[in-house]
Amino acid sequence: MSASQEERLDSVTEIKRLGIIAGGGELPFVLLAACESLGIEPFIIAFEGHTNSSLCEGYAHIWTRLGAVDKILKTLRAHDIEDIVMIGSIRRPSMKELRPDLKAAAFFAKYGAKALGDDGLLSALKSFLGDEGVSVHGVHKFSSNLLTPAGSVGAIEPQDEDVLNIRRGIEILQGMGQLDVGQSVIVQEGLVLGVEAIEGTDALIERCYNLHREGRGGVLIKLCKPAQDQDLDLPTLGPNTVELAARYGLSGIAVHQEHSLLLKREEVAEIANKHKLFVIGINPSTY
Amino acid sequence: MSASQEERLDSVTEIKRLGIIAGGGELPFVLLAACESLGIEPFIIAFEGHTNSSLCEGYAHIWTRLGAVDKILKTLRAHDIEDIVMIGSIRRPSMKELRPDLKAAAFFAKYGAKALGDDGLLSALKSFLGDEGVSVHGVHKFSSNLLTPAGSVGAIEPQDEDVLNIRRGIEILQGMGQLDVGQSVIVQEGLVLGVEAIEGTDALIERCYNLHREGRGGVLIKLCKPAQDQDLDLPTLGPNTVELAARYGLSGIAVHQEHSLLLKREEVAEIANKHKLFVIGINPSTY
Repeated sequence: MSASQEERLDSVTEIKRLGIIAGGGELPFVLLAACESLGIEPFIIAFEGHTNSSLCEGYAHIWTRLGAVDKILKTLRAHDIEDIVMIGSIRRPSMKELRPDLKAAAFFAKYGAKALGDDGLLSALKSFLGDEGVSVHGVHKFSSNLLTPAGSVGAIEPQDEDVLNIRRGIEILQGMGQLDVGQSVIVQEGLVLGVEAIEGTDALIERCYNLHREGRGGVLIKLCKPAQDQDLDLPTLGPNTVELAARYGLSGIAVHQEHSLLLKREEVAEIANKHKLFVIGINPSTY
Repeated sequence: MSASQEERLDSVTEIKRLGIIAGGGELPFVLLAACESLGIEPFIIAFEGHTNSSLCEGYAHIWTRLGAVDKILKTLRAHDIEDIVMIGSIRRPSMKELRPDLKAAAFFAKYGAKALGDDGLLSALKSFLGDEGVSVHGVHKFSSNLLTPAGSVGAIEPQDEDVLNIRRGIEILQGMGQLDVGQSVIVQEGLVLGVEAIEGTDALIERCYNLHREGRGGVLIKLCKPAQDQDLDLPTLGPNTVELAARYGLSGIAVHQEHSLLLKREEVAEIANKHKLFVIGINPSTY
């Protein structure tokens, strides 16, 4: 374990009870397992239509809706919870679907249009929760080996052509990230086949298949936005996406080292090796 | 006819013979009709797999492949053609599909990676053709009413919410345009549902339907990139896209006034009115 990892773990060992604001996907399960091994008592805030219901089995939890901020805050207080992790995918609702309660309405009134960008919303929410006495933490503080390491995860390395594609992808994502939109692109022969907005990385891979050119496959580049808060929603890569990348003929995947989450590293390496695909953690500032 | 339109027309009245480097879609037909009415003799360079074969009927033409630059230049010289328009959609091929001849290879050697961006390629090509004694013109010089006018094309005006979405779209596109990628976005409630790379505007509209939120529909914003050359490939809007936008529940479309092409203006207005959709020409610097 590296010094920085120890430091991160130190900072959360004080936590006895953790609120898990849980969206969909696999990450909330990873966090629950980490809580078990660290002796932290989890309390799950689950959302109808978003959270996997099997997550809650055997754990203290409530089911609620996204706009019910007051109910969520009161629940946290009633259980003496001052630390939370917001984790897992949540399809962002419209204001109409959200039905904000008074507390949520106050939030939108205070942060207004700033809250409308992808990360702007989360940063504003973190600051708002801070004012309410709730600290927001990143999942990587609880599970030390979740952050993507530097270098190749499997045995395959990018070729010269891939390196050029990765550099073009970095350029696009860094420009777009400043606008608080876009987390992934697929680049083939320097040509940007697709840019991810809110459709998700898997949907991006699928649709780019119809746009790809003959020759060596494109590269998926997935980065953390320049000003993105490590405690909020980090880009995540797992076996499913690597499998999908292989099925749709990509040459490889470059992800942000130390600024993204890598699920099931060994399985990712196996899949990548089997399909002769590279998966590499990169530092976009120096690549 | 405005003074600037007269000036534009003046500049091409000297042209007796015009080479039309023709991709797919409707625009090459518009240009051919304009040549007829201006007494300009067209010569069509048609591309296998790209150009609509009915375009060539009754006109001097050759069929060739994209990478055969030397053949194209020799053909233009043999017919005393010094002026061309590059027009219509061409699905950008991979280097493998392109099979560049020596002249094309010289072009790529000279411009290298610069040629790999979307507009970078066209600008480099224009400069390369200039060195070969060929002037590249924009279609709007030949058909005075093709440029999108300012203001609403139909009877419907954007609502306050639409205006905010348009402004968010402008912000995204201006940032992305500097990276030479992205011509359109769809924004709903300030949320960027999708960003167009090379899939085309119609594909963007279709895929964003699955991502839309309840409530008032999103807005398609389509702009010319900041440094885009008016003589090259301008953003284009026509009845088909407006029909599609209505079918997929968008509230309206904002396009770049004077820096984009609007096909069949009356038909666009009719479709927009029928579906209560706004179509508006905007100046992104002042909107």
